[in-house]
Amino acid sequence: MKNIERTDDERVGMTAFGRTEFESRLVRTKELMSERELDLLIVNDPANMHYLTGYDGWSFYVPQCVVVSLEEEEPVWIGRGIDAPGVPATTYLKQENIHYYTDNYVHVADIHPADFIVDMLKLRNWNKGNIGVELDSHYYTGAIHQKLQEGLLPGQLKDSGNLVNWIRAIKSETEISLMQEAAEILERVMNLAINLVEPGLRQCDLAAEVEREKLKGTSEFGGDYTAIVPLIPTGENTGIPHIHWTDKEFQKDELVVMELAAARHHYHCPMARTVYLGEPPEVLLNIAAAAEEGVEAALSSIEPGKRCEEIEAAFRLVLAKHGYVKASRMGYSIGLGFPPDWGERTMSIRPGAREILRPNMTFHLMPALWGDSWGVEISQSFRVTESGCETLGSIPRKLFIKR
Amino acid sequence: MKNIERTDDERVGMTAFGRTEFESRLVRTKELMSERELDLLIVNDPANMHYLTGYDGWSFYVPQCVVVSLEEEEPVWIGRGIDAPGVPATTYLKQENIHYYTDNYVHVADIHPADFIVDMLKLRNWNKGNIGVELDSHYYTGAIHQKLQEGLLPGQLKDSGNLVNWIRAIKSETEISLMQEAAEILERVMNLAINLVEPGLRQCDLAAEVEREKLKGTSEFGGDYTAIVPLIPTGENTGIPHIHWTDKEFQKDELVVMELAAARHHYHCPMARTVYLGEPPEVLLNIAAAAEEGVEAALSSIEPGKRCEEIEAAFRLVLAKHGYVKASRMGYSIGLGFPPDWGERTMSIRPGAREILRPNMTFHLMPALWGDSWGVEISQSFRVTESGCETLGSIPRKLFIKR
Repeated sequence: MKNIERTDDERVGMTAFGRTEFESRLVRTKELMSERELDLLIVNDPANMHYLTGYDGWSFYVPQCVVVSLEEEEPVWIGRGIDAPGVPATTYLKQENIHYYTDNYVHVADIHPADFIVDMLKLRNWNKGNIGVELDSHYYTGAIHQKLQEGLLPGQLKDSGNLVNWIRAIKSETEISLMQEAAEILERVMNLAINLVEPGLRQCDLAAEVEREKLKGTSEFGGDYTAIVPLIPTGENTGIPHIHWTDKEFQKDELVVMELAAARHHYHCPMARTVYLGEPPEVLLNIAAAAEEGVEAALSSIEPGKRCEEIEAAFRLVLAKHGYVKASRMGYSIGLGFPPDWGERTMSIRPGAREILRPNMTFHLMPALWGDSWGVEISQSFRVTESGCETLGSIPRKLFIKR
Repeated sequence: MKNIERTDDERVGMTAFGRTEFESRLVRTKELMSERELDLLIVNDPANMHYLTGYDGWSFYVPQCVVVSLEEEEPVWIGRGIDAPGVPATTYLKQENIHYYTDNYVHVADIHPADFIVDMLKLRNWNKGNIGVELDSHYYTGAIHQKLQEGLLPGQLKDSGNLVNWIRAIKSETEISLMQEAAEILERVMNLAINLVEPGLRQCDLAAEVEREKLKGTSEFGGDYTAIVPLIPTGENTGIPHIHWTDKEFQKDELVVMELAAARHHYHCPMARTVYLGEPPEVLLNIAAAAEEGVEAALSSIEPGKRCEEIEAAFRLVLAKHGYVKASRMGYSIGLGFPPDWGERTMSIRPGAREILRPNMTFHLMPALWGDSWGVEISQSFRVTESGCETLGSIPRKLFIKR
């Protein structure tokens, strides 16, 4: 495989970041590996692969990974042959650190790409010591784990937990600026959606306009795909948060929830808003008022040094005053994400969450209330600042009523 | 959890299919389970869950499954509490066959949703005999497998392979009509993309219009999200098939590959076309001519009873005549799909593929040619008919030249 000469600035996955930023991420990763006595770390979460190297490509439907060794300065990429040209195009990795398997390994019964990964580790004499794997990351299948177990020594594989995800928790200034740009796009998207939704419009047509606006971005910067599609639970489906849309037309006197997002270079800003198409019943107004007041209280309570659970407590107190209870968690850390999730799978905002807020952590505060046939979602993404929080994406936090 | 009364026709995931179709899928699944001596099958691929029950929802970022027991008439759904209302709304499952875990299980260190799955199996006295799991399905993580292994008897878990995926290989008339509708949308999408792409347009703006058209569908039926985003490798990136788009403007004398798709109720029709923005170099015309002639030969060779490898051989023969070789596979079965893949992970069109073509199997014939800094993709989705093949999506199979 030959290589087109590119500068770091021309590499797709690295365009937003300097080489130094990637190096500092790697240093931190190796520090944590040392602490946890891991000699090697096999990173297979696409967001973590991207975070450490810039690697970008919709290739995560086949096994692939970035391997970090304490012995080697730079990581190694292992993946499918037809995806290998994407490595020099999107990362700083040296040519000798790219290993790829042929299509003979793809979707066949007798051999598995993880067998190839084992072979490469052996080739580099890396099949020793403790090897960390992301045991619960979405694309690290049971089959991959079993193949690695069979090919390596008993007990050698260790669950690295969300080692890299935790490093991602505190964002750099560049990462924050990408999320602010995503927020700018998101504001356009949400305003458009609120303006367009009306009886007679098909749900799919609303989704179409949302997607267009999301990808167009602004005249200065374009939008990226988001890890989750627009979720537009409508009518009696508003109690089902993760349903998307249908061909049906919106109806008069219908409740519509819109959980949307925008992204820049895979960095997300999500937001949910709720619209009533008509004169809302009193009970809905009461629920919305509780949600609105609760989210304001939660946002006011945010400051560095506090624990995640304290944010939830502030919300819960207000909710209780209004006579409501929320059983599910009300927020989670966000940032870099690939399908199927823009959450980082580290911190949640909920009772018992002891993690301490630090400046430049970013969350989606998602205090949704759901009933049997209704739901009200008024959410807010935010960044923890030195003294409080900065909201990401400014749209009034209220129930929108379109009479 | 209360339940809104809905008829089968009103259930989102079932709207395209009658109850009978779901029953026949289940019967076939149980037959294969018996053949393979599986007492229980844990289905966690979102496409397979949808296929057996109609279940729909962007909830596959947390562990969930549909469990089929030879002892029980209907499957059981196990998933997260906030997603449970989606089950009566999208499936025919009885209320007592819905088990859900609380948010206390979500993204915490000490307890895992798979622990809950084990508890539910025990509660139903299903922790005996052989239990099939989809060991290599995307969201069946190493952690889920490990938790199930710990909670059940040693050796009890068996890899069911792609048991349900293989049942999906031959489509029903309703499934075919959904794919034909997807093809109709796809034609609009691809025509729009070919018309719009030109020097000065940003890549993200093309992606925006593609997404809009894809979701708008036609005036009769709307579009669904597809399992893969638009892939628009451009210029020197055309040799990288799975890269998506950037903010950059298309350039004069640039090569553009567009692998796009449309979907109806999660049933896909993908297609790739290649456009040159200017006067193409002679070598590119030669490559495109070989690809065009090759794909025609492949399509002409299709008929029931032939083996997948024979289709590839027909293509390879033409390619060799032109002096080219293609190393990677040139097609795969398609249909129902959720992110990250619209392929079914069963049949491939490549050397050594011994699977026999049957009427109503559907494939994406993807004879792409890639070099160091170029790529030509002219693909065709098709259905095997009683006597040959029906193409899905009609756009001239040629290199498009926009001078």
